[in-house]
Amino acid sequence: MAVRTPDPDPSDSGDELPEFGSDGVSDASNPGWLSEFELAEARRRLPMLYVEAVPVRTDGSGQVTDIGILLRATPLGEMKRTIVSGRVRFGETVRDALFRHLENDLGPMAFPLLPASPAPFTVAEYFPLPGVSAFHDDRQHAVSLAFIVPVTGTCEPRQDALEVTWFSPEEAVSDALAAEMEGGRGALVRQAVAHLGLIR
Amino acid sequence: MAVRTPDPDPSDSGDELPEFGSDGVSDASNPGWLSEFELAEARRRLPMLYVEAVPVRTDGSGQVTDIGILLRATPLGEMKRTIVSGRVRFGETVRDALFRHLENDLGPMAFPLLPASPAPFTVAEYFPLPGVSAFHDDRQHAVSLAFIVPVTGTCEPRQDALEVTWFSPEEAVSDALAAEMEGGRGALVRQAVAHLGLIR
Amino acid sequence: MAVRTPDPDPSDSGDELPEFGSDGVSDASNPGWLSEFELAEARRRLPMLYVEAVPVRTDGSGQVTDIGILLRATPLGEMKRTIVSGRVRFGETVRDALFRHLENDLGPMAFPLLPASPAPFTVAEYFPLPGVSAFHDDRQHAVSLAFIVPVTGTCEPRQDALEVTWFSPEEAVSDALAAEMEGGRGALVRQAVAHLGLIR
Amino acid sequence: MAVRTPDPDPSDSGDELPEFGSDGVSDASNPGWLSEFELAEARRRLPMLYVEAVPVRTDGSGQVTDIGILLRATPLGEMKRTIVSGRVRFGETVRDALFRHLENDLGPMAFPLLPASPAPFTVAEYFPLPGVSAFHDDRQHAVSLAFIVPVTGTCEPRQDALEVTWFSPEEAVSDALAAEMEGGRGALVRQAVAHLGLIR
Repeated sequence: MAVRTPDPDPSDSGDELPEFGSDGVSDASNPGWLSEFELAEARRRLPMLYVEAVPVRTDGSGQVTDIGILLRATPLGEMKRTIVSGRVRFGETVRDALFRHLENDLGPMAFPLLPASPAPFTVAEYFPLPGVSAFHDDRQHAVSLAFIVPVTGTCEPRQDALEVTWFSPEEAVSDALAAEMEGGRGALVRQAVAHLGLIR
Repeated sequence: MAVRTPDPDPSDSGDELPEFGSDGVSDASNPGWLSEFELAEARRRLPMLYVEAVPVRTDGSGQVTDIGILLRATPLGEMKRTIVSGRVRFGETVRDALFRHLENDLGPMAFPLLPASPAPFTVAEYFPLPGVSAFHDDRQHAVSLAFIVPVTGTCEPRQDALEVTWFSPEEAVSDALAAEMEGGRGALVRQAVAHLGLIR
Repeated sequence: MAVRTPDPDPSDSGDELPEFGSDGVSDASNPGWLSEFELAEARRRLPMLYVEAVPVRTDGSGQVTDIGILLRATPLGEMKRTIVSGRVRFGETVRDALFRHLENDLGPMAFPLLPASPAPFTVAEYFPLPGVSAFHDDRQHAVSLAFIVPVTGTCEPRQDALEVTWFSPEEAVSDALAAEMEGGRGALVRQAVAHLGLIR
Repeated sequence: MAVRTPDPDPSDSGDELPEFGSDGVSDASNPGWLSEFELAEARRRLPMLYVEAVPVRTDGSGQVTDIGILLRATPLGEMKRTIVSGRVRFGETVRDALFRHLENDLGPMAFPLLPASPAPFTVAEYFPLPGVSAFHDDRQHAVSLAFIVPVTGTCEPRQDALEVTWFSPEEAVSDALAAEMEGGRGALVRQAVAHLGLIR
């Protein structure tokens, strides 16, 4: 079974952020926009820079109580679990990319608290060939800066993410959940829970 | 001039948290409470575990805009600048100690966002003998877990902290400010600003 | 069954590092040395500062290939697994304490590569009452700065540590190994493996 | 004055690693190789993934004593200071890229000790437009994972890096040195020294 990442940047095909020209060529007015053809070509030649976020709920003392996992329908209609994930665009800061993808995947009322420091808690490397690392994406070589992001509001996923499910840290690291996750991201969730000091 | 840390645990002498018995002996009902004499003895024999916090303000994207520095009167009436700092008690979690000292030093309406992860951004070692490390406390050997803590509310210092002053990251790392800070904590503020990616 | 930490500072009772006076009182020439009675008293009143190290082997590119676990006989003759662990003394830097305990537990030919940065990968909190955190020590409240330390030489444990066993990262996070580890340190090993990006 | 990064991947034009076809078109046998034209195009459209390393010398206890800074001649014959820096190739792990650039810039006898963990100590973002961040590269948008790497052997820079100069941590954070460094990397060196706990 081909395990694919979610569409890397769901908003790219949205109206408000038309990175892809409808005619398959890049918009001449912005060299940072790529046609679908050009992006597909670049994916065969260069590592793509991604950001990923594990959404969490915290109690009043900052202790994490719940881990948020997205449920998403793949293009083939299969249901897969994943985390917030997407590409960094040309000219965009990592912080802005992280904010944009959090809003895309969790909705405008999630009120995420982005990290103050630029250092990710880990770096995940996705290769098209399975087995090179814990992570796999048959479409591209992607390198992802992974962050843990408390959210304080209400999550209403947009686009192809259907819902956010909240799990206890114990449930989040279970084999059952890991088996449902796309591209090996169960390992990323476990790393996040371990980083929080909540693995036993 | 003797540079001293602030009283390590201002609340210890407060009514609501009577760690020190008024008669100078420990409260028999709680072996974790120390008399002033016993605490003074322990300070000559054991490293004391501290937590410290650099309070920060952030913008909507989590980017730090301001660094909070406390102004405090020393027992000798001298004005010194410092950060949130205090001892971890017997049986108390690091998270609870951090929360308690933030509330003591910034007031109950500061609404600090404590870090989700237990790992400090750095560890500061204070020695009674100057020059062993960047940090100095002529009263004790203290080892401090240092955190960066966004605060979202209003700071109203209690007890001996007189006020919180907000500085830009550039001002916070200036030589002038560092010279006013207790025990070498100017170095700790610089490490915090560097950790935030805001040093130039 | 009482789960105990290893003796926190095996060298303290050794000939070469006589922290405890043989007569049970502290050595007047060094106020940082504690009698056994005084140390026992302090343990009932103050959190003890510890350092811990997960020894690892790496390949030529720095990738961790093996995790080192100590086998130790408890005072009751029970065999338990643990990691390098010990107390920070008065006046001692964290780095020196880490080096001292690595040498005590792995021998003088282990050639450990101590971390360049003072920040631990995590902080483990041991409480006398089980269940407060993942970690437990029925003798004391200890707060431990945990580091991952590559060793390049030959490990020959001294004193009560009987041997070092090298496990693959997969084996090191197994439930079977975690069940054999003292004081909940299986969780600490899992956090270390996760920090290394090697958990799946 | 245009401040440019060093050629991002000096080895790309070397004989042993012919990423660029001599005729300006990509090698059909490896779609991950880019022609110079294609790479130039990609640089106008996508953020480039980089790794950077601050080489350090340590003493026997792992404490950093010296910071290594490269001296390099720009294509215009200007002398600039920099650190180890280069692009991650398609299909290459971050660890392999880091190792390759360390060898390129420090020579085969440097014997670097690569970090065990995949998390960088910071992420540096280089934008073609100055002022967006502390870092600037007029040729591209590059996002760099920055590591601190102890080297134990002899550094003999190859290619366009002329020499490695070792500075004390105090010298390494001086304004004079920062002014000589390419693309704002003085800030990156300061962040590294701060991360090591060596800034005062």
